[in-house]
Amino acid sequence: FQAPVIDFLGLSEKVLVFPYETDFSFVALIPQKEMALRAFTLCMRVATELPEERQIILFAYRTADYDELNVWREKDGRVSFYLSGDGVFFRLPPLSTFRTSLCLTWESRSGLAAFWADGRRSTYQVYKPGHSVRPKGTVLLGQDPDKHLGGLEATQSFVGEMTDVNMWDFVLSRSMIQAWHYGHKVPKGNIFDWASLEYELSGNVLVVDDD
Amino acid sequence: FQAPVIDFLGLSEKVLVFPYETDFSFVALIPQKEMALRAFTLCMRVATELPEERQIILFAYRTADYDELNVWREKDGRVSFYLSGDGVFFRLPPLSTFRTSLCLTWESRSGLAAFWADGRRSTYQVYKPGHSVRPKGTVLLGQDPDKHLGGLEATQSFVGEMTDVNMWDFVLSRSMIQAWHYGHKVPKGNIFDWASLEYELSGNVLVVDDD
Amino acid sequence: FQAPVIDFLGLSEKVLVFPYETDFSFVALIPQKEMALRAFTLCMRVATELPEERQIILFAYRTADYDELNVWREKDGRVSFYLSGDGVFFRLPPLSTFRTSLCLTWESRSGLAAFWADGRRSTYQVYKPGHSVRPKGTVLLGQDPDKHLGGLEATQSFVGEMTDVNMWDFVLSRSMIQAWHYGHKVPKGNIFDWASLEYELSGNVLVVDDD
Repeated sequence: FQAPVIDFLGLSEKVLVFPYETDFSFVALIPQKEMALRAFTLCMRVATELPEERQIILFAYRTADYDELNVWREKDGRVSFYLSGDGVFFRLPPLSTFRTSLCLTWESRSGLAAFWADGRRSTYQVYKPGHSVRPKGTVLLGQDPDKHLGGLEATQSFVGEMTDVNMWDFVLSRSMIQAWHYGHKVPKGNIFDWASLEYELSGNVLVVDDD
Repeated sequence: FQAPVIDFLGLSEKVLVFPYETDFSFVALIPQKEMALRAFTLCMRVATELPEERQIILFAYRTADYDELNVWREKDGRVSFYLSGDGVFFRLPPLSTFRTSLCLTWESRSGLAAFWADGRRSTYQVYKPGHSVRPKGTVLLGQDPDKHLGGLEATQSFVGEMTDVNMWDFVLSRSMIQAWHYGHKVPKGNIFDWASLEYELSGNVLVVDDD
Repeated sequence: FQAPVIDFLGLSEKVLVFPYETDFSFVALIPQKEMALRAFTLCMRVATELPEERQIILFAYRTADYDELNVWREKDGRVSFYLSGDGVFFRLPPLSTFRTSLCLTWESRSGLAAFWADGRRSTYQVYKPGHSVRPKGTVLLGQDPDKHLGGLEATQSFVGEMTDVNMWDFVLSRSMIQAWHYGHKVPKGNIFDWASLEYELSGNVLVVDDD
């Protein structure tokens, strides 16, 4: 976190390119509201050339003492997420050099959790009913901080492209998630909205036009 | 390069068939303009029965001292390209006995490089920003010359079918590349245009009707 | 060929079921015209549960001294055909429990040979240009005779379903082959026409309605 940081606003029709493996390249996202969450939908489009057996951090939200909400592609190819503690694992079609639309929905009341790949829902799993995500942390794309503001590892870093990272503090319906997948209009993310996203670039991350 | 050479013009609705492994069969392409390039799009349709672990040359442009622009299917199945030096590697769906539409785009300013398989873009990689491809070389299909006009190896040769080899000195948009994939009308290649291509056949290469 | 033989005519909307491995079950097909061929298209729909590494005879046409035209699924998974001598091998999507539309085209003048799986053409290979298939032999489905009218081996036999075996003494166009795949009307096979096929059942082969 010694690297020079540049602030920007809005990534409409832009893609983040993480061109190679580092322990210093990341994008910090500043949420529009505090992330005290009892439900959420997190969506992104992601493409990677990383080999199948490589762990990949897809989204990391950490407070001082906890990994509040981390999304991973695991070594065994499964996609997972963790709410401060043990995670839950899903078998999805593999991430590839072509873009995958990936959403994750979770709701505290029932604990129902699912990933959505290109608009298709995974099997539900019941995960941490009653749990709350704590506010006042930091969201990073590209790296997993093992402590608040530090402890990055190249072998977990993201390499490839990310775009359209959006987050809502509620669970979007199937039709909304499919609309989002196809690029149709949906309610703007009230935590992160790609078109008006406030973010900080650190290290070597390119912002390029999405063609 | 001792083999008898025959000049031809135009391959509209024709396919090149390289029927077996040789170190003497190739097609030399004569560009419409000098290949001093700071950007390009190279497209072709290609089908091969060669085994997965076999290196295959897909396109070779060589000047006196450099492999200026080579496209390969590597031994590990990845597709790669090289601009005079180390290459860059992409994981695409495997080439097969059925035709794949394959395009490659690169731009010197940003270094952004991508393959497009059947109209779908791979993840961007950043490769040799600032570099220029040098003019006054020779383009071969079917063989990789290890020196200018010589040094061919059967174990790298192309076996299978190639058609619709087109090249532009700029980066085509996503919609243009998808139009080309589906056989719709796009701007003619200003370096190579399959319909009016000037070429020389050498060794055993068949020109057959595309059905 | 000691087994009782029953003659039949026409298999419209019928499927041949070869229920288990034998060295005595087969169907002999009687051609509408002599099979002196300098070109042909052979089509069938085939489904099998046989393991990938098992050799399978798909079509056998034998004269007194030669295997005139044999089609195989080889031990390595490739599909092949042989015109009296060494064969030619193609890597197609594997045969499976689901029906595959399989066509084979060959023309003596150019030697161009291709398989078509579900309407998609394989890479052309050049095979025995100038060759002719000899007339006055016997066509079998289900078994490979190692000599004329004898020498059957259970480990090469076909197990599964075959239907819509048709043969023409010319090369059908891409659009015809795709029409046949989709069950649309195409010119009737002038060597074998499934709807009016003359055939002999031997051993344990079931003729069932195609649903």
